[in-house]
Amino acid sequence: MVEKTCGATVAVDAMGGDLGPSEVVAAIRLGLGSPDWTKLHKIILTGRQEELLPLLREAGLENHPKVVLEHAPDVISMDEKPKAAFRRKEASLLRVIDLVRTGQADGAVSCGNTGALMFSSTLILKKMSGVERPALPAVIPSRNHHFILLDAGAQPETTSRQLVHNAILGEAYARAIFPIAKPRVGLLTIGTEEGKGTARIAEAHDLLKQLKGEINYIGLIEGFDTFRSVADVVVCDGFTGNILLKTLEACLVTLKDVLKEEITANPIRKIGALLNKGAFASIKRTFSPEHYAGAPLLGLNGLVVKAHGSSNREFIKSAVRIACDALEHDMNAHIGDTIEKANALAKSAPVTPAGVEFSG
Amino acid sequence: MVEKTCGATVAVDAMGGDLGPSEVVAAIRLGLGSPDWTKLHKIILTGRQEELLPLLREAGLENHPKVVLEHAPDVISMDEKPKAAFRRKEASLLRVIDLVRTGQADGAVSCGNTGALMFSSTLILKKMSGVERPALPAVIPSRNHHFILLDAGAQPETTSRQLVHNAILGEAYARAIFPIAKPRVGLLTIGTEEGKGTARIAEAHDLLKQLKGEINYIGLIEGFDTFRSVADVVVCDGFTGNILLKTLEACLVTLKDVLKEEITANPIRKIGALLNKGAFASIKRTFSPEHYAGAPLLGLNGLVVKAHGSSNREFIKSAVRIACDALEHDMNAHIGDTIEKANALAKSAPVTPAGVEFSG
Repeated sequence: MVEKTCGATVAVDAMGGDLGPSEVVAAIRLGLGSPDWTKLHKIILTGRQEELLPLLREAGLENHPKVVLEHAPDVISMDEKPKAAFRRKEASLLRVIDLVRTGQADGAVSCGNTGALMFSSTLILKKMSGVERPALPAVIPSRNHHFILLDAGAQPETTSRQLVHNAILGEAYARAIFPIAKPRVGLLTIGTEEGKGTARIAEAHDLLKQLKGEINYIGLIEGFDTFRSVADVVVCDGFTGNILLKTLEACLVTLKDVLKEEITANPIRKIGALLNKGAFASIKRTFSPEHYAGAPLLGLNGLVVKAHGSSNREFIKSAVRIACDALEHDMNAHIGDTIEKANALAKSAPVTPAGVEFSG
Repeated sequence: MVEKTCGATVAVDAMGGDLGPSEVVAAIRLGLGSPDWTKLHKIILTGRQEELLPLLREAGLENHPKVVLEHAPDVISMDEKPKAAFRRKEASLLRVIDLVRTGQADGAVSCGNTGALMFSSTLILKKMSGVERPALPAVIPSRNHHFILLDAGAQPETTSRQLVHNAILGEAYARAIFPIAKPRVGLLTIGTEEGKGTARIAEAHDLLKQLKGEINYIGLIEGFDTFRSVADVVVCDGFTGNILLKTLEACLVTLKDVLKEEITANPIRKIGALLNKGAFASIKRTFSPEHYAGAPLLGLNGLVVKAHGSSNREFIKSAVRIACDALEHDMNAHIGDTIEKANALAKSAPVTPAGVEFSG
């Protein structure tokens, strides 16, 4: 991978996260002192001046040459409806998006209300030419690799063409954040034999095969393949992706609880657990989402990275690095080119409406 | 739960499993000596007489009063297409189904080709009146409970009415195999707020709310809720269910591998692992699928339990117990009644074709 200077200006919504603006300021302090952020040109912090100024002062960042404060008096809460939130023009969450629109920032980061961020980003930045709907990727850790699952919930149901778009969006994102030149892209289905699955899957599969010069499409994959390092990008509709992601999280939490309970059930086991402290720490590190704690909404004219509402300073720091990586790799320019080629192919192919059943 | 006498006759396909007929005979020997099978009236073993007779003799079962041998000279292989397999009328897999059709057996068990078993069962036994498509349940273990996920792959896409049918089928199955009088039924979606998800989900949700007198419907649930003991039955379409099930399996295998690698990485950790041998054995027991190793194809006029191709004797023994449990609880009779009520409700409700998008 060629190292380029990022030189990016990233706008960060200081008010949206569960842990409040002090955690965001702590993340900035951490990031500015870390090698992850050396290529960053400037951070624009949006939020209530009266709250942020004392925090910046306390952190010794008040006059830092890379930190700019942008006053935004309003705050969108976590349970606010996207449409209602969009009317609060003075909110910090809307301000970061608007800074991207006007070109004052190259990318935005927010831990705020997901629905509001996605809705507002789509309205303010608009979809890229040729893209029907934006998609949200999620990075899932496995044994010796990570894979990108998308769509993780932006569009519950998709046509075959939208699945192809998801493949293109995911591939571009993989190249931006993984050290891989040709990420392997797989289309998730319920049986890789001919005639299995749905009509949409079969059509998307045909289109993707024709795009092999553009993306490294490896074909249909099953649930079994996801954790096996078969594909770097796992493509599906947002309904499946969102359920998959949340169920996996629930499963991991349950396993962690069971493991903890069992290895502390008696004094002997407790000693054994102590001897394996390093093993458990290593497993925790392997499966921690920290390194890929944010994800951009893909397919928009501009970069907006959504970080989890409960993000701590490490996660927020990581989300800013993800924004820098995407900008450094000129992710969006590449997406535009490939989408155009895919749409030209799709024009001549039959398209089944989302969800019509397959008689295979 | 009232204890009733099962007195069931179960036909077992001796030829279909990966481990061959000797494992099936071993399972029968095991089962006949176990309290799990005391209510069983008779086992009919179908397959090649010339292979089975010596095995039964060796196991001391040749003249056992509960064991009957039914010669079926043909064997359907694992990779055979369902339609081609269906033409092999002398196959052991078809014979067990036919014994159910003629009433010679109350239920059937096979570890053979899933596609062939589902296709043939549906053609030979026919769908129950009012059921549009059969569904395949899977039992997933969690911390302090198990939950049934269905459909696990029988029908990739569903209408709202078919989702309601899945709920009814899953509820009846839960009552048959779990010691619960009123299993909690949840409908899996991507956001439990109003207006999220798909039109099908919203319609199925409305219908299920009206069926609350019949089934204990707890409402919409998300992926997060699956492992939390919120619902005993998790309803979804076969595309989502199959991907979910296979991805969870892949995730668990990966975690097991990582754990094993880490706790044996050096001598200190190995000692720690030894001290925690009991803990790991207990976790393995908790998450083992053994106790629910088979699943019936739900919604047919007759009971056919599909066990995994790689089933060992314990799993096959367990699949026969599941058949007995379903028969003992008169599962199919209950399904018929509730389906009728659901269809009467659905008649007056709007039905969106599978997959049409929701503008919420």
